[in-house]
Amino acid sequence: MKRVLITTVPFAETNKLPIELLDAAGIEYVINPLNKKLTADELEAMVGEFDAVIAGTELISKSVLENAPRLKIISRVGVGLDGVDLNVARDRDIVVTYTPDAPAPAVAELTIGNIISLLRGTHRSNLMMHEKKWERIFGRRISEVTIGIIGAGRIGGRVLRRLSAFGSPRILVNDIAPNLQVAPQLKIEWVDKETIYRESDVISLHVPLSKATNNMITSSEIALMKFDALLVNVARGGIINEADLADALISKRIAGAAIDCFDFEPYAGPLTEIDSCLLTSHMGSMSVDCRSRMEIEATEEIIRYFGDTALKNIVPDSEYIMQSEG
Amino acid sequence: MKRVLITTVPFAETNKLPIELLDAAGIEYVINPLNKKLTADELEAMVGEFDAVIAGTELISKSVLENAPRLKIISRVGVGLDGVDLNVARDRDIVVTYTPDAPAPAVAELTIGNIISLLRGTHRSNLMMHEKKWERIFGRRISEVTIGIIGAGRIGGRVLRRLSAFGSPRILVNDIAPNLQVAPQLKIEWVDKETIYRESDVISLHVPLSKATNNMITSSEIALMKFDALLVNVARGGIINEADLADALISKRIAGAAIDCFDFEPYAGPLTEIDSCLLTSHMGSMSVDCRSRMEIEATEEIIRYFGDTALKNIVPDSEYIMQSEG
Repeated sequence: MKRVLITTVPFAETNKLPIELLDAAGIEYVINPLNKKLTADELEAMVGEFDAVIAGTELISKSVLENAPRLKIISRVGVGLDGVDLNVARDRDIVVTYTPDAPAPAVAELTIGNIISLLRGTHRSNLMMHEKKWERIFGRRISEVTIGIIGAGRIGGRVLRRLSAFGSPRILVNDIAPNLQVAPQLKIEWVDKETIYRESDVISLHVPLSKATNNMITSSEIALMKFDALLVNVARGGIINEADLADALISKRIAGAAIDCFDFEPYAGPLTEIDSCLLTSHMGSMSVDCRSRMEIEATEEIIRYFGDTALKNIVPDSEYIMQSEG
Repeated sequence: MKRVLITTVPFAETNKLPIELLDAAGIEYVINPLNKKLTADELEAMVGEFDAVIAGTELISKSVLENAPRLKIISRVGVGLDGVDLNVARDRDIVVTYTPDAPAPAVAELTIGNIISLLRGTHRSNLMMHEKKWERIFGRRISEVTIGIIGAGRIGGRVLRRLSAFGSPRILVNDIAPNLQVAPQLKIEWVDKETIYRESDVISLHVPLSKATNNMITSSEIALMKFDALLVNVARGGIINEADLADALISKRIAGAAIDCFDFEPYAGPLTEIDSCLLTSHMGSMSVDCRSRMEIEATEEIIRYFGDTALKNIVPDSEYIMQSEG
């Protein structure tokens, strides 16, 4: 009997279908017994007996893979592959699949909510009100400001299309190449990252974590920003240097940030002391429908694999190249 | 020289134009020396020497008006007239003007942000993260739920049009009469209030405060709602019974609320103890552009009045009738 380790938690909490699918296919499964994001060491100690992993964002490093003699397939619940050493997996004939489209609507919607919260000071007012402090904060509307989007793919594109309902802000977008079809209803200026840092009131990141984007925003980039700039990261920890961000918020070098993902999770670091920082616990894709879709799609790939059916979401070569080139 | 009392604070904080306009017109002004929302008694003690009031949401009652022998015009910065005893003002030949359109875009945008925050648990996660608690909250997206809007006027209509960028939720709307043009891009079901209470996942209020809407939502209406219902009030305090709302949130009879306005402000009551309640300090119209526009429009009416120029935003008879009939 094939055995699957499900590392990502919660799993099948609001929709039991993934579990039912595994049962029906006669595949044995174990859900992460530590009920938290695993370290590489923890995963290494666990993975040996399994033929497949239904994976979250944890590190699936070379040494994890070297200790997984039976492993044939890693099926990522989600889109980011920064945790998986893809080229080592390929060398060991381990297939990697993912669910690239499922999380996008939920991440985009949270991004819009967080942009409004930052612009209006909602999160700051809520903290103060819960301490019985009344202070009316002046905010700005989306259409009054310049919005800078870095990464106009599945998620960034959806953010842009939703922004179009809020009037006509100035929109600056950076990506590897301009995608003129991404949001035809908006007037978009395709610019370099430095222009985004210098001219945006709100900067929102929608890039994968890779060698090229790791530490993309440090003190040097923050030094280019407006003093009332607001920074949104619902993408991946590591893209913004956390220590530099904390310094910038404490010194009021920028006005605020909304951070959903962190270098190490669960996060309990210095940003938790900063009221201008809106913090959420990696909830970008955590809408019931998107999460269910991600879990079902990832589970179906495992069932296809062991049922000798063609896979639908094999990670493309471009992701392997990005990892080896950085 | 004509003298104006400006009761609403902050005033001309981000844009000095209203003050410059008054100076240029040779009108003397005093900005609310208590720097908070005045009680009727405080206003009554102050108002005697003034020919005009640039007013906020404070109570301008019969006894205030009876102690204002020189008062000729009340120019409301904003749209709600629940604080002004309109019919007594008319009896005393005091003109009342307002700025009905200016606040709407800011209120609508905050409403959308608060709906997303409630649906995703952003405000709850932020409170927990600032206490170093990591708990990934499952949320819902706008397009997964039924949204109930009570009041489809200037603000409710804008909320509906912005919602149209977030997919196709089921939308229930109640107003005195259906307005089929309000958001042609959405499929709207025009229903009675009870249907909204029974069937909505998110209920957002966009009605004025009047005898008819005072205590519109009490325990009886909450008893009709779903257990995971979320309630948004960025309209006026008094529409939702605050004590009943606090009971419902504490007992988890409903799942959450976003409340921006209160019976008495500054508010420091029981809702401040409830984490599922997103609280803001009456900031619906507090975007720099909308607030400036409101202040400028209200100031211009005063200048027109004393310059014998036709007024542009005299409160219509319908508002007087609504107050006398309830």
